Amino acid sequence: MKIGIVGGTGNIGEGLALRLSNKHEIIIGSRTPEKACESIENTVRLLEERGISCSCIGSSNQEAVDRGDIVIISVPYKHLLPTLTPLSGFENKTVITPVNPMTKKDFFSHDPPKEGSAAMLIRSILPGNACIVAAFNNISAQKWKNLDEELDYSVAVCSDDEEAKKVVMNLVNEIPKLKAFNAGPLEMASVVEGITPLLLNIARYNKMRDVGIQFK
Amino acid sequence: MKIGIVGGTGNIGEGLALRLSNKHEIIIGSRTPEKACESIENTVRLLEERGISCSCIGSSNQEAVDRGDIVIISVPYKHLLPTLTPLSGFENKTVITPVNPMTKKDFFSHDPPKEGSAAMLIRSILPGNACIVAAFNNISAQKWKNLDEELDYSVAVCSDDEEAKKVVMNLVNEIPKLKAFNAGPLEMASVVEGITPLLLNIARYNKMRDVGIQFK
Repeated sequence: MKIGIVGGTGNIGEGLALRLSNKHEIIIGSRTPEKACESIENTVRLLEERGISCSCIGSSNQEAVDRGDIVIISVPYKHLLPTLTPLSGFENKTVITPVNPMTKKDFFSHDPPKEGSAAMLIRSILPGNACIVAAFNNISAQKWKNLDEELDYSVAVCSDDEEAKKVVMNLVNEIPKLKAFNAGPLEMASVVEGITPLLLNIARYNKMRDVGIQFK
Repeated sequence: MKIGIVGGTGNIGEGLALRLSNKHEIIIGSRTPEKACESIENTVRLLEERGISCSCIGSSNQEAVDRGDIVIISVPYKHLLPTLTPLSGFENKTVITPVNPMTKKDFFSHDPPKEGSAAMLIRSILPGNACIVAAFNNISAQKWKNLDEELDYSVAVCSDDEEAKKVVMNLVNEIPKLKAFNAGPLEMASVVEGITPLLLNIARYNKMRDVGIQFK
């Protein structure tokens, strides 16, 4: 599949590219395409060192949307609206959101918009025939990027489109050790997004690093 | 310690009594104390069959509050206000809430009150010197009651009172396999409470039973 990553030069975007580009054609998008090309050089080098061939190109965010069958919106919550507003062409695309609305005060706090979640905010902005799927919300950015780290975690996948949800669950399950769980409709993304500040607080208060979650 | 369980005849209350009464004096409260006594007979019998001695008595909800150093509010969310309103004497008590505000439509939905969580609602009702601690929110009622089931789960513990939080974390860790995590201030209980409807949906949509969580 062709997977476009909007905001692909951030930690999670680079990590997704590293973990998916051996099987899929990845289009890393950035506001500054030169930065995307630099990020790619790094990704290709890391994979070549391990003898893994990959397909990965750098582009603008708009090109990542245009060329992807699946588009992953991998930007911090505060950049979500400024990033999405100028983009178009999401019609009939499967759009994955790992975005978590949170703020840091003395601790990390879940701070959702009035729509209830970043996922529902994206739903309200993009065309009705775009299939929005929340996934990959609760995995530490640091773990994504370190290929020596096994991602032995559960991934809650929420969507109102059952077909798109299946495609994304299969994508999750292609990454070694990650296990996708159908977590119901997009409305449930509000809870899933809230888990990330909870995990960050748990890491902080219990002197742990890169805490994730397993359903069992 | 003396642990009073308000609503102690429900599944979670009975499960807590079963798992804690070998080390602590448990006062099971109920609106109808006769029901509490019946519940106790069952608990004592189940433990005696395993050669475990226990300390457990049945009482009214008010007596469970009065006699407990720790009071666990183990009622379904819809019974929370009617149960708490007539009770008094919470001053300087450590009050544990495993209560999760949720509704069932086509799926289980997190449905918090305007205070943000059941924990913050309890905070707003009880006297300021009661120490409110959210804990035990995400463990299946069925698993609590079946002593053959190992509770190999994580328990997020939230409170604004660090001393009370430590006491409750120690209590959690006394139950074999359960592991307490400091999850920060009481405000974070909103996320922890939301995880329960998420787990119920995951169980339903993935054909699983009694799903719990681990932080790792």
